[in-house]
Amino acid sequence: MQQGEHLAAIDLGSNSFHMVVARQVHGEIQLLDGLSEKVQLGAGLDKDNRLDEDTLARALECLGRFAQRIAGIPRGSVRVVGTNTLRQARNAREFIDRAEAVLGHDIEIVAGREEARLIYLGVAHTLADDAGQRLVVDIGGGSTELIIGERFEPSETESLHMGCVSFARRFFADGTVTEKAFDRAVTAARQEVLSIHANYRRIGWQQSVGASGTIKAISQVCVDHGWCDSGITLEGLKKARKRVIKAGSFDKLDLKGLRDDRKPIFPSGLAILYGIFEQLGIEQMEVSSGALREGLLYDLLGRFSHEDVRERSIQSLMQRHHVEPSQAQRVAETASSLFSQVAGDWQLDNEEMADTLRWGALLHELGLAVSHSQFHKHGAYLITNSDLPGFSRQEQEAVAVLVRGHRRKIPVSALEELPADEREPLLRLCLVLRIAARLHHARCDEATPAMKLKAEGNTLALAFPEGWLDEHPLTLADLEQEQEYFQAAGCELKLS
Amino acid sequence: MQQGEHLAAIDLGSNSFHMVVARQVHGEIQLLDGLSEKVQLGAGLDKDNRLDEDTLARALECLGRFAQRIAGIPRGSVRVVGTNTLRQARNAREFIDRAEAVLGHDIEIVAGREEARLIYLGVAHTLADDAGQRLVVDIGGGSTELIIGERFEPSETESLHMGCVSFARRFFADGTVTEKAFDRAVTAARQEVLSIHANYRRIGWQQSVGASGTIKAISQVCVDHGWCDSGITLEGLKKARKRVIKAGSFDKLDLKGLRDDRKPIFPSGLAILYGIFEQLGIEQMEVSSGALREGLLYDLLGRFSHEDVRERSIQSLMQRHHVEPSQAQRVAETASSLFSQVAGDWQLDNEEMADTLRWGALLHELGLAVSHSQFHKHGAYLITNSDLPGFSRQEQEAVAVLVRGHRRKIPVSALEELPADEREPLLRLCLVLRIAARLHHARCDEATPAMKLKAEGNTLALAFPEGWLDEHPLTLADLEQEQEYFQAAGCELKLS
Repeated sequence: MQQGEHLAAIDLGSNSFHMVVARQVHGEIQLLDGLSEKVQLGAGLDKDNRLDEDTLARALECLGRFAQRIAGIPRGSVRVVGTNTLRQARNAREFIDRAEAVLGHDIEIVAGREEARLIYLGVAHTLADDAGQRLVVDIGGGSTELIIGERFEPSETESLHMGCVSFARRFFADGTVTEKAFDRAVTAARQEVLSIHANYRRIGWQQSVGASGTIKAISQVCVDHGWCDSGITLEGLKKARKRVIKAGSFDKLDLKGLRDDRKPIFPSGLAILYGIFEQLGIEQMEVSSGALREGLLYDLLGRFSHEDVRERSIQSLMQRHHVEPSQAQRVAETASSLFSQVAGDWQLDNEEMADTLRWGALLHELGLAVSHSQFHKHGAYLITNSDLPGFSRQEQEAVAVLVRGHRRKIPVSALEELPADEREPLLRLCLVLRIAARLHHARCDEATPAMKLKAEGNTLALAFPEGWLDEHPLTLADLEQEQEYFQAAGCELKLS
Repeated sequence: MQQGEHLAAIDLGSNSFHMVVARQVHGEIQLLDGLSEKVQLGAGLDKDNRLDEDTLARALECLGRFAQRIAGIPRGSVRVVGTNTLRQARNAREFIDRAEAVLGHDIEIVAGREEARLIYLGVAHTLADDAGQRLVVDIGGGSTELIIGERFEPSETESLHMGCVSFARRFFADGTVTEKAFDRAVTAARQEVLSIHANYRRIGWQQSVGASGTIKAISQVCVDHGWCDSGITLEGLKKARKRVIKAGSFDKLDLKGLRDDRKPIFPSGLAILYGIFEQLGIEQMEVSSGALREGLLYDLLGRFSHEDVRERSIQSLMQRHHVEPSQAQRVAETASSLFSQVAGDWQLDNEEMADTLRWGALLHELGLAVSHSQFHKHGAYLITNSDLPGFSRQEQEAVAVLVRGHRRKIPVSALEELPADEREPLLRLCLVLRIAARLHHARCDEATPAMKLKAEGNTLALAFPEGWLDEHPLTLADLEQEQEYFQAAGCELKLS
C-alpha cells in the first residue's frame, strides 16, 4: 500500500450500513469520509428468513450512493462484509449478486467468529498497549460479539444470536416497553451469555471495553445524565432501565443525548447490555470508538501483529507535522534523565509519568508546523484535536498541557482546569521539560554535561560542572530567564 | 539547500542585534527561533566615531549567546551583516575581528544601498503580488532606508543618515522632549529626505509600506489608542506627536502598546517618520513584518526573482499538511466555474473575490491533517494561525471563514463577526464552495456535467442535465442535505 493511496471498508450491518474511506499517511490511517445509513436490513427479514423486496430496494439504493463515492478506488483496496442478517437470510445470494453489480466490488459474508476478530482488531487500535486480558463487547443489530484478547491477539471470539434489532422485534414489537418485557429481554440475553459464561469467567479479564453504536448511545445517555463520568457503569444501567420502563414506549423516551432515530432500538440494546453486565459480573466498561469497519481497514493494511499503538501514534504525529526527530530525541532524553533524579523525591516514579513526559518532549515543537509565534499553543491544539489511537482523552490532554507549558509563561490557569490530582504532577513534569528544552536551545549534538537536579516541592536546584555555564552563555541567559518564569508561577529554580 | 536544512541570519543593527534561525520546509521558510538583544551599538560611538570598550564588550557577550545557538550550522548557511554604526565606526575592523572569533562566521558590513535591497526583499515576501510601485520605509537605529520597487524588483534604493538612536542623541540627549526639539528633529528629517525627494515623487508609488521595530511600535501605539484601524495614518502621527510633547520626557511617556525599553527611542523615531510623511506627502502607510533579517534568509535561499508570493504560500501550506492536490484542484475549478456564472448577478465579479474562493477551495480539506472530526474547524484554525507571506490578516481571515463554512452548519455567527461589508460576499462564496465540495464528494476524475447556476440574492438555482442526478444518487442525497443547511441559514438551494 503506497503512501496516500485510498482504501475503503463497508459494513453491511443488520441495523445500519457503514462506509469509511481512508488513506495512509505516514503509517497511520487518515479518515477521509464516513457515511452511515440506517437501512435496517435485519428488520426486513420475514418469518421465513427472507429479505423482503422493500428492504432489498432500500439497501440497494444506499449502496448506489456508496458506490458513487468509491468508484475510483481499485478492487483490492475495498472490503465489503455482510454480517448476521446476511448470514441468516435465505435469499442472501440474490441480494449479494444485485449488490455486487451496484457496488462493483465483491461482498463477503463473514462468520461470527471472523466478525469478532475484526471487531477486536478495530478496538485494539484505539487502546493503550497494556498487557492484560480485555473483554470487548460489540452489540450489533442481529448479533453480539464478545471477545477476550490481549494487546492485538484475540484468544476467545464468540458471536451470540442477539442484537438490538432482533430483540426489539421480539420483546418490544408494538413499541411499548413494560417492566415485564424488559426483564424478559434481560433474561434472554443472560441465557445467550450463559453458553460462554463459564469459559470467559475462567479466563477472566482486567478491563472491559464496549464498542458499537448501541453501546456508545448508552454511554452518552449515562454521561449526559451525570450517572457516570465516562464509559458505562452498572449503576448507570440501572438508572437507564428505570427511565426506559417509566417512559413505557419508544416515542415517550426522553433521555438526554439520545437521538430520535436510536429510540426504537435503545430499550433492546440496553436490555442486552444489562444482561451481559449481570451475567458476567461487570461493574463498569470503557467505550471505544473502534469497530468492525476500522478492523477491516487495518486488516486491509495487514497490520495485526503486536506493536505499541501509542508509540506509533506519536511517531506518526511527529512525521506528519515535520517535527525534527533529532531535537525531539535530545530533549526527551535529557528530560527523562533529569526526571529520574527527582521522580523519587516527588513520588512520581511510575511508568505513566515517565511516558507522559517523554511524549511531551517528543512533541514539544509540534506547533512549529503552524507558526513559530505561539508555537507551544499550536502544539497543544494539534495534540488535543488529533486522532491519537491508543490514548485516552485524559492522557491526550495531559500531553497537550505539557506542550502548552514548555515555554513562555507557565500556564497556571490551564493547569488549574485539570483534575486536582493531576495538577501538581503535571506542573512538575512541565518544570523538567522546560529545563530540558532550554538546555537544547542550541540544537547541537554536544553531550549535555553531568548535571545534578534536586527537588524540594516546587523548588528545583540544578548543579552544573564547574565552569560549564560560563562556556555556554546562551544556556546561562536562558536559564536565568527561566528563573523568572518559575518565580511567577510560585516555583523556584536554583542554579549552581 | 536541502529540505530541512537550517540557515540563520544575523543583523548587527545600531539599536538591536537580531538573529533568526529557520529551516526550509516545502519551499517555505519555517522560523525556528528568533533572538533579539538591545545592544545599542550606535549609542556606543564616541565623538571620534570609535566604539567604546563597554559597548564592544556588551556586543561580544550578545554574540557569544548567538554563537552557542548556531554552533551546528555550516558556514555557508549563516549570513551576518553589520549596518550603519559599523559603516561609521573607525574601529569597526577591530570589532569585526573579535566578533568573528566569537561567532565562527564571517561578518560583512553592507553598504546602505545593499541594506536597502535586502530590506526590500524581506518586505516583498510579506506582500501580495500586486503590480504597481511601492515605497518601503525602514527606520533603523543609525540609518533609514527608503526604497521604491515593484513586486520583487527594487528600482530606487536609498539609505539616509538618520536613525532613531542617532536622532535621540542629537535632539533629546537629556531625555526631555520639548515641542521645539521635536520640530527641529522633524525638520532635520525633512532635510535628509530632501535629497531624494524630487526623484522619488517623480517616480511615485501606489502603496507605502513601513518596516522596522520603530515603525511597528508607532503603529501599535496608534492602533491601541484607536487613532487608526491598522498601519499608520498622518492623523495618528499628529496625535502621537501631541502626546509625546505633552509628556515632556522619556520616562513620563505613557502610551498604550509602548514597551518601556522603546521609550528612549520613540520620540526620535516618531519625528523621523513624521518628517518623511510630510516631506513625501504620505497620508497612510501599511506595516510589514518583513525586515533586513528576512531579506538575508531569502537571499541565502537565492529567492529573489518574481513570483507570486501568495500562490507559493498556499501551495506550501497544502504540501505541509498533505492536502490531496487532485481533489483540491477539482473543487477549486468547479467552484470558480460556478462562481463565474453568478458573480455578475451578485456584483462580485472582481479578481479579489475569485482569488479568495479559489484559495478557500484549495485549502478546504486542510484540517484533515488534524482529524476528520470537525475538519472544517481545524482547517480554519490552521489558516488563521499560520504564517502566510503575502496575505493580510483580513485576507487570511476571509479564507479561514470560507473553510470553516464549507461543510456542516453554515456558520452564521462567525460570519456576523466579520466587518459588515464582507459578510454577504463571504456568505455567498461559502454557498458556492459548499456546492462545489458536494459535487466532488466522490473524489473521482469524471468530469462534472454542464450545470447552470443562477442567483437571486441568497437563493441559488442549480440545474443539471436531464437524468444526471438520477445516475449520481450520492450527489443527489448530498445536495438534498445541503438544501437543509441552506434553509437553516436563511438561504435557499433549488435543484432541477
